[in-house]
Amino acid sequence: MVEMGAKLDPWGHYAIEDYRKLLEEFGISPIDKILGLLPHKHKYFERLVIFGHRDFDVWLEALKRGEKVAVLTGFMPSGRPHLGTAMVYEELKFLQSLGAHIKIAIADAEAYIVRREDRSEVIRRGVEFVAHSIAWGINPDNAEFYYQTAMDNEYYRLIQLFSRKITAAEMEAIYGDINPGKIMAALTQSADILHLQLDKYGGYKYIVVPVGADQDPHLRLTRDIADRFEQEFGLKRPSSIYHKLLRGLDGNKMSKSRPEYAIHLDDDPEMAEKKLANALTGGRATAEEQRRLGGEPWKCSIFELYVYHLIDDEKELKERYDECVNGKILCGQCKRIAAEKLRKLLIEHQKRFKEVITSGIVEKILKKPSF
Amino acid sequence: MVEMGAKLDPWGHYAIEDYRKLLEEFGISPIDKILGLLPHKHKYFERLVIFGHRDFDVWLEALKRGEKVAVLTGFMPSGRPHLGTAMVYEELKFLQSLGAHIKIAIADAEAYIVRREDRSEVIRRGVEFVAHSIAWGINPDNAEFYYQTAMDNEYYRLIQLFSRKITAAEMEAIYGDINPGKIMAALTQSADILHLQLDKYGGYKYIVVPVGADQDPHLRLTRDIADRFEQEFGLKRPSSIYHKLLRGLDGNKMSKSRPEYAIHLDDDPEMAEKKLANALTGGRATAEEQRRLGGEPWKCSIFELYVYHLIDDEKELKERYDECVNGKILCGQCKRIAAEKLRKLLIEHQKRFKEVITSGIVEKILKKPSF
Repeated sequence: MVEMGAKLDPWGHYAIEDYRKLLEEFGISPIDKILGLLPHKHKYFERLVIFGHRDFDVWLEALKRGEKVAVLTGFMPSGRPHLGTAMVYEELKFLQSLGAHIKIAIADAEAYIVRREDRSEVIRRGVEFVAHSIAWGINPDNAEFYYQTAMDNEYYRLIQLFSRKITAAEMEAIYGDINPGKIMAALTQSADILHLQLDKYGGYKYIVVPVGADQDPHLRLTRDIADRFEQEFGLKRPSSIYHKLLRGLDGNKMSKSRPEYAIHLDDDPEMAEKKLANALTGGRATAEEQRRLGGEPWKCSIFELYVYHLIDDEKELKERYDECVNGKILCGQCKRIAAEKLRKLLIEHQKRFKEVITSGIVEKILKKPSF
Repeated sequence: MVEMGAKLDPWGHYAIEDYRKLLEEFGISPIDKILGLLPHKHKYFERLVIFGHRDFDVWLEALKRGEKVAVLTGFMPSGRPHLGTAMVYEELKFLQSLGAHIKIAIADAEAYIVRREDRSEVIRRGVEFVAHSIAWGINPDNAEFYYQTAMDNEYYRLIQLFSRKITAAEMEAIYGDINPGKIMAALTQSADILHLQLDKYGGYKYIVVPVGADQDPHLRLTRDIADRFEQEFGLKRPSSIYHKLLRGLDGNKMSKSRPEYAIHLDDDPEMAEKKLANALTGGRATAEEQRRLGGEPWKCSIFELYVYHLIDDEKELKERYDECVNGKILCGQCKRIAAEKLRKLLIEHQKRFKEVITSGIVEKILKKPSF
């Protein structure tokens, strides 16, 4: 496993091990201090899956005062959505349940420019990402989805004009090596976040951006840009919340480049069960040792699935944990329990996905780019 | 006077002395070889004020075959338009006379980003640039004008997506030192030139870009980009023609930063005459020497005004030249002749400018950006 360096690379693929370092080094605040401000609970906050934030308390207080708030996040339409993607869907569902309007960028410009994906393939996948998000439970009546390359003038004008007040050295300090494509993708993301505050898009509102921890560089850039354009364009810093990255079944970051270790939302349920059978666990070398010493769930990709997706109930999760550390359950049995839950989750999700696709709703709410 | 280096800096202010070097070093073709292709004459071609081109023969032949052709150029709305600006107006008038549609970018994004101009001031000046161009004789019925920050989605999408296929090293090879702003401004100019070939803007057409010699770096970049996106977006290389830069009355490049050596189109005619009185000429140290040796019109800013703007008739120009080199006329008398012609030109232009402004036509044809 790769140690996290001083620079986070949102385009990289390594796992982030040390979330405390993020909190200290980049000034991300721990989430546990502000849990009391949440109008109601969600397991991600309780379990510190969402572990940090910037100014989320400011956003929550604005929400409480009845001021205009919104949520902005983006999905990269490269590869197929997996259980890591579903974490953001889950967060968005929660934020919608607070009454917030959500807007979601399909990062097709970024996928094309930085990931060098085929343009028409990226556009096609965008539709799937949106359908999956609705199948997961996002309410399309209180959500907007857009391709980064199918927006309006005012949005693009931000991208263009932002370039005046950021230097190459500053970009390098945030991203490491830069090039025209990375600069464009980064400024596009800043426009994604900040355009919601323009008059054209309803005027000033408090924004929160839920992201994986690896996306913080974009937030740092966007906060700097907001400061520099506050006087001229009335833009203000967004808030953000950070979730830990769900690892793949081999313990590394879940990634489309290693599909055998990722659970995709459109995986055949039986295939998915087989992937679990081969997953890295926190088990011991032998059954005897496991019974004597107990397992190590904090090292286990199966237990991570319980925490992130498969077990909602806190009591049940605790039981699973205790059984493991006390050596009362062996990995094989535990995997079968997880596999059964996963199979159920996938079958139900895929049923809803088909309904969403056949309903034609995505075509109704998502305008495709003309080229 | 500054020698031209191996790199041309379109954002720089030095005079370009050695146009032959441009022809050789950057592969700009001499214009005199293709004069026979012009349907009718213009003094700028005859006098080699327009001295070079890239693929202008291709454009002229497409025009002759009746294929779709267009002209694209841009004006930087920083400072007030001067006689250097009017050279482009003059070229556009000529290209319109061939039947070509012309489209003109007001480079407000570039002025804001790279020149760091005030945004509302830039927008205000854009209106003046358009009014001056119509006053100079551009037919608004066969011309389109637009601010770079008030365009449509498809145009901006080009700017965004172009960034994929150009590297930082390539940009540096063309522009020298780069930064996010310069990259954005350069890609914006490429979109200015190439967007006309998109379906949204009428589909493929042959484009020619009339520019000052210092703008060739943008053309080189744009031609590279067109090559790289030909297969994907159907873009093709633009043609270009290059005019020499009208120098200021001190012999250096005419520039807004030294207004006392520039003739602005809105200069008070009497003030303009006074500027001429102090202009650098090709005269000798004393009247006696001048009569004996003759003047050197090729060094004279007054003679340059004759060539570029004040004398249309070839015979009259030749007489003025001969009188000078034969010592038959002294600089004082010559300046008075030029001043009288300039006064007349400015009075007539400013009368038409007022008519254009009061007619409200600019507001009708130019959509202002919303911020």
